[in-house]
This record gives sequence, structure tokens and C-alpha cells, in this order.
Amino acid sequence: MIKAGVVGFTGYTGAEVVACLARHPQVEITSLAGRMDTPVKYADLFPKMGKVVTQVCRKIDVDEISASCDVVFLALPHTVSMDYVPLFLERGKKVIDLSADYRLSADEYQKWFKTEHKDQNNLMKAVYGLPELNRRSIQGASLIANPGCYVTSVLLGTLPIAKMIAKNGITPIVDSKSGATGAGKKAETSLLFSEVDEDLKCYKADTHQHIPEMEKILGQAAGQRVQVHFVPHLLSIKRGILSTIYIKDAELPSAQEIHGMYEKFYKDEPFVRVRQIGDLPRIADVEGTNFCDIGITVSRGLLIIVSVIDNLLKGASGQAVQNMNIMCGFDERAGLL
Amino acid sequence: MIKAGVVGFTGYTGAEVVACLARHPQVEITSLAGRMDTPVKYADLFPKMGKVVTQVCRKIDVDEISASCDVVFLALPHTVSMDYVPLFLERGKKVIDLSADYRLSADEYQKWFKTEHKDQNNLMKAVYGLPELNRRSIQGASLIANPGCYVTSVLLGTLPIAKMIAKNGITPIVDSKSGATGAGKKAETSLLFSEVDEDLKCYKADTHQHIPEMEKILGQAAGQRVQVHFVPHLLSIKRGILSTIYIKDAELPSAQEIHGMYEKFYKDEPFVRVRQIGDLPRIADVEGTNFCDIGITVSRGLLIIVSVIDNLLKGASGQAVQNMNIMCGFDERAGLL
Amino acid sequence: MIKAGVVGFTGYTGAEVVACLARHPQVEITSLAGRMDTPVKYADLFPKMGKVVTQVCRKIDVDEISASCDVVFLALPHTVSMDYVPLFLERGKKVIDLSADYRLSADEYQKWFKTEHKDQNNLMKAVYGLPELNRRSIQGASLIANPGCYVTSVLLGTLPIAKMIAKNGITPIVDSKSGATGAGKKAETSLLFSEVDEDLKCYKADTHQHIPEMEKILGQAAGQRVQVHFVPHLLSIKRGILSTIYIKDAELPSAQEIHGMYEKFYKDEPFVRVRQIGDLPRIADVEGTNFCDIGITVSRGLLIIVSVIDNLLKGASGQAVQNMNIMCGFDERAGLL
Amino acid sequence: MIKAGVVGFTGYTGAEVVACLARHPQVEITSLAGRMDTPVKYADLFPKMGKVVTQVCRKIDVDEISASCDVVFLALPHTVSMDYVPLFLERGKKVIDLSADYRLSADEYQKWFKTEHKDQNNLMKAVYGLPELNRRSIQGASLIANPGCYVTSVLLGTLPIAKMIAKNGITPIVDSKSGATGAGKKAETSLLFSEVDEDLKCYKADTHQHIPEMEKILGQAAGQRVQVHFVPHLLSIKRGILSTIYIKDAELPSAQEIHGMYEKFYKDEPFVRVRQIGDLPRIADVEGTNFCDIGITVSRGLLIIVSVIDNLLKGASGQAVQNMNIMCGFDERAGLL
Repeated sequence: MIKAGVVGFTGYTGAEVVACLARHPQVEITSLAGRMDTPVKYADLFPKMGKVVTQVCRKIDVDEISASCDVVFLALPHTVSMDYVPLFLERGKKVIDLSADYRLSADEYQKWFKTEHKDQNNLMKAVYGLPELNRRSIQGASLIANPGCYVTSVLLGTLPIAKMIAKNGITPIVDSKSGATGAGKKAETSLLFSEVDEDLKCYKADTHQHIPEMEKILGQAAGQRVQVHFVPHLLSIKRGILSTIYIKDAELPSAQEIHGMYEKFYKDEPFVRVRQIGDLPRIADVEGTNFCDIGITVSRGLLIIVSVIDNLLKGASGQAVQNMNIMCGFDERAGLL
Repeated sequence: MIKAGVVGFTGYTGAEVVACLARHPQVEITSLAGRMDTPVKYADLFPKMGKVVTQVCRKIDVDEISASCDVVFLALPHTVSMDYVPLFLERGKKVIDLSADYRLSADEYQKWFKTEHKDQNNLMKAVYGLPELNRRSIQGASLIANPGCYVTSVLLGTLPIAKMIAKNGITPIVDSKSGATGAGKKAETSLLFSEVDEDLKCYKADTHQHIPEMEKILGQAAGQRVQVHFVPHLLSIKRGILSTIYIKDAELPSAQEIHGMYEKFYKDEPFVRVRQIGDLPRIADVEGTNFCDIGITVSRGLLIIVSVIDNLLKGASGQAVQNMNIMCGFDERAGLL
Repeated sequence: MIKAGVVGFTGYTGAEVVACLARHPQVEITSLAGRMDTPVKYADLFPKMGKVVTQVCRKIDVDEISASCDVVFLALPHTVSMDYVPLFLERGKKVIDLSADYRLSADEYQKWFKTEHKDQNNLMKAVYGLPELNRRSIQGASLIANPGCYVTSVLLGTLPIAKMIAKNGITPIVDSKSGATGAGKKAETSLLFSEVDEDLKCYKADTHQHIPEMEKILGQAAGQRVQVHFVPHLLSIKRGILSTIYIKDAELPSAQEIHGMYEKFYKDEPFVRVRQIGDLPRIADVEGTNFCDIGITVSRGLLIIVSVIDNLLKGASGQAVQNMNIMCGFDERAGLL
Repeated sequence: MIKAGVVGFTGYTGAEVVACLARHPQVEITSLAGRMDTPVKYADLFPKMGKVVTQVCRKIDVDEISASCDVVFLALPHTVSMDYVPLFLERGKKVIDLSADYRLSADEYQKWFKTEHKDQNNLMKAVYGLPELNRRSIQGASLIANPGCYVTSVLLGTLPIAKMIAKNGITPIVDSKSGATGAGKKAETSLLFSEVDEDLKCYKADTHQHIPEMEKILGQAAGQRVQVHFVPHLLSIKRGILSTIYIKDAELPSAQEIHGMYEKFYKDEPFVRVRQIGDLPRIADVEGTNFCDIGITVSRGLLIIVSVIDNLLKGASGQAVQNMNIMCGFDERAGLL
């Protein structure tokens, strides 16, 4: 039994971490903190959790949180998280950071987020929390940079063939589609129900701030620089990401060979399910779960990979709890099935 | 051919007025004005209207608008409209006001909108723009108070039996359900797609600011005070209102008699369709149209009336154009089929 | 640890029972049976359950199922269930029936389902599985008639005041709104996405086959006959029921008194949450949970009660598992939080 | 004023043709025919059209229809249409066929639809009804093969660069997303609201029966054979197609040059709107209209084209009426704005 705290709960990912922890048989939630003046019962803010989460939310007090927790989840905005991470690390806490603050190099961070990184020392120690790639490092980590949602869907869809992509000089074209919770809980007219409903739009075509993260990790796995064309779309659904990944290659191996690479790579993974060749997963197959489902088909020299996740679970909070399970030596699936 | 202007186009009703007028064979849009600093092509703000509306939007200049228009539609927020109405009336323009500013008595207005009415003189001259009730007065009116969306659905569903309701001392119970455009285009987290989608909620139960309007008009039609219990719900759809109206009465006439009252009342109406007894309309039947469909059934001493409209058309902008058609002597359906 | 079987899994409620049982710490799923010719892995039919449910589905063989199970859940169509219930009871199994076959008297059943009841002997022994009403009887039952979804929302919304309703001779008016899974998984054009999406419709107004069930149970609780006006609507959402219940009564107690009755009635209930006066729940508050949330407000002599449930959980499969927990002496919340 | 008939109205495209014709100032609907035994008022089948379409539907009687119509729209299933087309042509009628029966060569037809073409004589005379490509031929045609919905979105998105594509040996990768009405009004469980809602799925990846149509027409425009990778996805919205088209080319011209090709190609088109470079259209921009909006951006050697249409209007019925307008010498936009 460990004690966990969640800092930042007004957004969708913080609330989802709380929901996962509340179901977790080996975790006690000992702290809920966020921007607020006076303490409030969590269930008064989130009536859905009435009779489930009985704790009180308080303002962020690093000492108080550290005194009561073994692990701290940070669900804070980008550029804010790096103010808190060093404080919790100094106090000996394990930290799982859901923001983008510890995923890129200092240079790339400055380039994409237009601000200097304030905690470059810890940045170098952070472990990128994709269990399928870094399980061993996660076990001993004290700071986890939890992957982005789009990035998770793209990496899990391409890692088994990363070396092949790099060797053949391919730039995958990724056409991603995400539910609206991926855009967060911001009061913007463009995110209103009446604007998003019954619509589909393409945005930040090949200019999204998640691109450097996918290129960095895929490049590390391939052992050389890899480029990715990434074109996201906003769906009129709440949850889920489906990435359709196109690899056009004159020297493509057979569907069977490629499928074999995926099956081998994910053989023992508890949360990745590789389908039979030609059987493509849909978002409904993973909605509300921590699974990533992957389908593969080859047609006329084109490899098509479909990768689906729930953006709030495997794409954020579920993966964060999976990382905690690994760090703490629990069954990796605890609280997540 | 008349010249029309629309003041206020950032909300949903203003845009819908523009769309109706653009289709109208006897109207030229000569002015589009709103809160803005520099002129912009309308189609740059609303790409949907590219190659349809070629006009430029400008800031609100009463003299300029008056110089170019015969009729002015005001799609401004409540309490703002009454600043502009007298200015356009002074300049001899016909005004159709889509706000709530000219629908209530000065006393009721102050009670419900918490501010004194600033244009009580014109308030007394305003004609309530429900054609099915006031067609003759609308013909000669210079100021139309265009009805509220919920109110239109409730009034059209009850007017034929207003006297019976009043005589028997009944308080109808109205359970209304509205699409999200009814809440306007405000940047509030409670109206985000991720909050409204897949949800249904009841709000302002029997305390909604539309209640005095329905009670006032229904009372006028009945010749005596009438109360209405009104309980609105927010649907996760874009457009449409369905009001289920319950009349529990020990002395209820037969279904045939009641149905006869509706058929008679709406006999010559171009935009009301009374269904056969027991045939209840759905929102899809009127979505995108200016119709109000009405169904009636009687069961175990309970009269159930279902009234559906498109909240942006018959509930707002379509009705405004219908009023314009009446004021100008056009075919009442022009631009609306 | 008990062994459970599910008979009938092609519909939505069967699949939901399987999902709940798969999460349940004290249950082993030992049989999955349905109309099929050859055995198939469950996860091949429901890819969402890959790596979670590893069992194989087989055709319905009463002896085989009985040999492997302690408890059998029947998720079969109405009028089919009563063919199987006696066979499992004879073999000493505990049976939880999700159909309507054991909820009404033989006479009422014949009247509403247009067919004679074939198992009247067991019909008399069946316990109506609403834990908040019948917990003690459920503990010792061998056959549970699991309540209907609409009925659950209406009963939980009215049971605390059943005697008051009966004594004052009130007929509650219930305006219910249900997500589309409530209509089942039938290949009918009226249930197509393109028909239901962005629509709302009222159907079977005060003639729905769930009415006798709510009147029977409410009458039993009140100690005398009670009538209910029930008007259902089909929402364009997947899951959830919101019932708005209207009680118009000249002698209504105060809101505080009424609220006190609800708080007292549900004081120790694990799955009912009574809100503060005037705080009305929405479907999102219970979606994906086994909770029923209840809100109360009083306005101008009208009591308005809003009751929300997830139709597939508290309205069907979750309640079925709650009943199993009670029958087996488990924590009532096991597998359901 | 011409007389028009619609054969087949139970599907979504037939109903949409009727709606367009009902608004058309120069058309009288003189015949509505389909599979039915006894005549029924159209508005009884489609209450939405009450007080708008007053005609009666009858069974298909070729002589009767021909006697009353100048133009006949066929909204029949593939493989059925070719039974009727020759009959109407023999009787001197202009025919606009919305099925796939006259879009492919006899060989390709047999290959993709698994049945021999029964009307190869007329097949050779049919004009492919894409006004932006074939306006002149459409003017004099007696038989129009109205394009498929996906195909329209892909062709309009690529025609201006067809020669460049062919010359450089590029195979465009098209990731299309369509609303559910594109799948028709078939009673299949996979199309139920509860299955489609909140989901996204990829289907028939690069094997869809629309591929030969796009390759044929694009090849004709390019003057040589062109291949297209086409991967469709089913959206949980009702209407609209967004195709994201990827052209990866080492010798790509500049964004300005490419944009210039589009602007030039569509300079005088009433229903194509080319956006500024980098401004990508969304489905909402064309929903309910006959427009095709096109956006273009270039990034790191990849040309990305986004093309959006309303699948039932520019993708089917609106385009059919546009073709009729051209054949009859009307303003091409009549009935379509």
C-alpha cells in the first residue's frame, strides 16, 4: 500500500488519474491539491466521485503534500510543471509528470514552447514513461516524463519497425484523429459543443508541438534520426485517438514479416494487442481502457498501420498509473482493468 | 426588393438571420454591423458563406446603417438591444429585435433581468412577433419583439387551448429539451463539447427567465392569468427544441375535441403542422426548417402535447424573417422553404 | 470465489454483465453461452475484451452450464427467458434473470406481452431485485427478477415518498429520457445512427410496457394501488437515463421535509446518492457507474425529482451483479466501483 | 419550368434530391416512384416535407413516369439502376443516375461489382457528371453518371494537379473520413447509433469499390494511368466527407505555384472554393451546402490537400441537381443556395 498525491485536478487528465487511483487496490490517495483558496471536498467539485473519493482538495503546499505522499502525480499545464518537479524530487518523492516539460531536450523545448527550460538538471534524469520501450529504466526512476497522447499512439504503432523505417529512409505519414478531451478543458468558443459537434477538422497540419517528441523517441529506438509527418484532426467524440500511419516503401517486406515484427515486439505486453493481418481496430475497442490496439494491412506497396488508444488512459492518466505500478513493483495492470 | 441590415452577427441567431436573408428573393442585405474595429469581409469570418454573402461587416454606426436599410434586425444581447432600438425607430426604420428586451412589461423586465428598462416608451408600442397570434398587428408594426425559442415551442403547443387551461385552473407542466445552440456562443467550460456530449441535464427547473414571457402571452390569449411550470433540459445535439406539455385535468375533453381545436386554430398557418392524434413529432422533422410540428395524445386523464421547432429558425431567426415578410407584404414563406 | 455463467451475450446487457464479472475479485467466469453453432473465443466477438476475457462461448447446453456454474445470469429476450429459468433452478443454480419475464403477475404479463406465462410456479417465487427495497429477500433468493432500466430510475426516484403519493391520491408524471442502448441491439432502420443522431423523440407516451412494473412495485411499497404516467423519450446518446418526475400536490410538505425522507430512506445505500436540495444531477454524473443520483426541488406547489442512472449498469447489468453480491454475501460494491 | 421525376426515395440520396427539387424555382416534381404496393402521400413517409411536398408516391411504372417527366433522377441501388436506364432513354427522357452503374468501363464494373453489365450500349454514351471537369459534355448529355461521394471529394482535391501527379509518378495517399449517411439506410447492426456513436473506424483500407472510379477519371484528366491509395474511415457524424490527401514528392513545386494551379482551375466554378494557403476547411463549412472547399499546405516536402463536401449534396443529390441545371440551361446554382 502506497500513498499517492495528485497535483492539479481541474483538467481531464488529473480527474482521470484520481479515478484510476480510487480503483487501485494498493494505493491510498493522501493528497489532492490544486489552485484554490479554501479546501473543498473533491466530490463537491466532481459529483461523479461521490461515495468513491471522500478526500478534500487543498491548495498546493509542497511540504504538506510531500509529508503525506510516496508518489506525486503532476497534472499541471506545460511550463508550470517544471516549477514543482524539483521541489518534490528534493523531498525524495517519486514524481510522474503528465505535462510536456520533461519530454524534450532543453533546446527542442525552447524551440517549441518558446521559453527556456528552468530545470535542466532534472530534465536529463527524467525517464520517458513508455513502458513498452523503457520498462527497465522506469523501475528505478524517480522522475517520469509521461508521454503525450498522440505520441503514444504513433510510437506504439511504429516502434517495432523503427529500424526498418530509418534504414530505408522513410518518413511515415501519420493521419491522426482525436476526441475533444485531448484539447483540454479550456473555455474557448472553438471547443464549444455547438462548434465541434457534427464537424471534423484538420489542424496544425505537420506543425503540431508533439512532432519533436515522436521524432526524438522514434529516432532513439531506430538508432538514427527519423522524421515523421504528423497531421492531427479533431473528432466530434469525447475520447479516443485513431492514428492511421502510412509507410510507402519500394522495398516493403511482406505483410506476414511485418506482422511478425509487431507480434514479437509486443509479445509480453499487458496493454498492447496486435490484431490479425487486415483486422483494423476501432476507437470503441479501447475506449475506457488502457489498451493500445494495432492493426496492419499492406496494399499495393503501402503499409497501413492503425493504432488506437483512449487518449485519457493509455494516452495520459492510465499510462501514468501503469508507470507507477512499474516503479512500485505492483502488477502492471493493477487499477487499470 | 427591400434593403435589410443585421446588427450583431457573432452569435448563432445573427448568423442564421444572414443565412435566411441571403436566400430571400426579395431582400438585399445592405448592412452587416457588430462589435469590431476594422471592416472585414463576412465570408472571412464565416467561411461557410463564401460565394454566397459578399458583404463587408463594419462597426455599428446607427446613421450609416439607417441610411442603407429599410429593415434592421437586432441580434444583440439582452439589455444591450434597448440602447439601439430607439435610435433606429427615430430614424424611421422597421426594427425586429431578437433579444428579450421588448417582450415583458417594464416591471417584469426589471424583476427578471435585474435592471431597469431604459426604453419604456417603445416597449409599449412593440408588437410580440408570433405570427400565429398577432399577424394583423405585425403587418403594421414598426418594432417587433421576436419571441424566445422555448416560449415559441410552448405557446404554439398551448395557444389553441389557452382558454380551456385558464377556465379549468390548470397549470401546464412543460418539460422542454433544447439543443446546445440555444445556450448561445459563450466561452464557458460548461458548454464545451467534452462536457455536453453524451450528457443530459435539467437546469433552472421552474425558474427560467422565459417563464414570465410564456405566462404573459398565454394569459393574454386566455383572457386571464395563467401559470406555467417550465423545466428545461440541455440536450447533446446542436439544434432543436422538443417540449412535452402535460395537462392533467379531471374534466378533459376527448382527444378528438382537443385535436379539433388545434386543427381549427392552425388551419391556415403556413408554418404549423398538426399531426394526427397519437402521432408525435420528433426534432428531426423540423430541423433546418421554420416549421412547428405538434402532436397530441390523451391517456388516462392526461393530455400530452409534443411541440417541436428548430430553435434557431422558428425559435429565433426564421421567425424574425417570417415577421419581416408579414411587415413587408411578402409571401410569408419567402426565404424560409 | 464463485463460478458464474452468462447465457445470452449478443445484446448490450449480456456484454455488460461479462465486463462487470471480469473485474470482480471473487468471481470466475466459467461459462459463456448463446445462440451459436460452433464455439468461438469471446474476445474474437468482442475485441474490446481481448487479454481480459479469455473464455470461449458455446451454444446453450443447460447441463453443461449447470455443471460449471454456481450462479447463472440470463440476458435473453423477453418470453425466451422463461424457457430456461426452470431448467437452471431444477439443477440447483441461483438464477438472475435480466428479462421482464419474472417481474409481473401472470395476468399482467399476459396483458402486456400478449402471451401466456409458461412458468407461473417460479414466477411466484421470484424476488424483485431492487436492493434498496428487497435486500433481505434477495439474500436468500434463488431466482432474481432483475428490474427494468426505466423502472429502476422511477422507483428509486419515488420510493421514499410512495406512501405520501398514495395517501394524497397523486399520479406522478414521469418524463424519462434514455440513451439508445436502452433500445437494444436490433437491426432496425429507426435505430440507425443516421436516424437517431441529432434527434430527440417521444415514443409510447404513457403506453410503455414498463408501466405495470413500476405501478406494481410502487403500489406494494405504498400499501395501495398507485398510478404512474410514464412518457419516455429516445436521446441521441449511448448510455444513461434521466427521469424528471413531477408531483403536483396541493398539500405538499416542505422541500426540507421531502428531502429528509430521501436522506433517511437511502441513508445506508452504497449506490444511491441524494443531492442537496435544488442540486439536480446529470447523466454524466453516473455514466459508467452503478450509482443512482437523485435531486429534488420544489417550486410553486410542484415537487420535481430528477433521477439519473446508467441504463446498462444500475439499470440492468450492474444491478444484476449487485444482486449477486448480496446473494453470495460479498461486499455489495465488489466489481462495481 | 421542367417536369422532374425521382425513382427510388427510400434511401438518403433520393430524399435529398426531392428536397432540392422542392426548393427549385424552375422545376415541378411530377412523379415520385419506388418499391411500394399502394400509393402513399410523400409527406406521410417523410413528415419533414409536410406542407412542402404534396405529391403522392407510386410504384415504378416506366410509361407513367415517362409520360409526366422531362428528366428522371434514379436513386436506385447499384445493379438495379441499369435495368431502368435504357427504358427511360428509349422513351426520350433525360436520365441522371445516382448509382455506380454507369461510372466504370464494363470490365471494371464486372471486376468490382461481380456481375456483368447489362446495358453496355448506354454505358458508352453516359457522361460522367462532374461539372468542374465535363460541363460542356453534360450540357448535351441524355444520360449522366452522377459521381460517387468519396470520388467527388478526391477528384476535386486532385484534378488541378492531375498531370503533375502523373508526370512525377506519384501515388496520392487519400485518408478520407465520411459521415454515416454515406453508408446508406440499411438495417445493419454495425450501423446502429449505439455502435457508431463516439467511435471512429477505418474500413476497406485501399480496397474500396470507389477506387477504380477515382483512378479512371483522374487518369483521363492526366492523360495517363494514375494510381490512388484510398483509405476511408466512418465518422460518428451524419453528413460530410473530409479527405486529407498526401502527395509526397521530391520535386514538389512551391506552395504558391500549387495554389495558383487550384485557383486557376476553379476560377469560375460556382461550387468550389479554394482557401488561402494554409487555411484548411472543415466539414461544418460545407454541411448542408453544395460547395466543395479546398485547402492546401506544404510542409517538409509533403503537399497536404484537404477537401470537404457534404456527401449527400455535392457528393450525390446536390451534384445531380447541378447536372440537371446544366442540362436544362438553368442558372447552375438554382435550387442549391
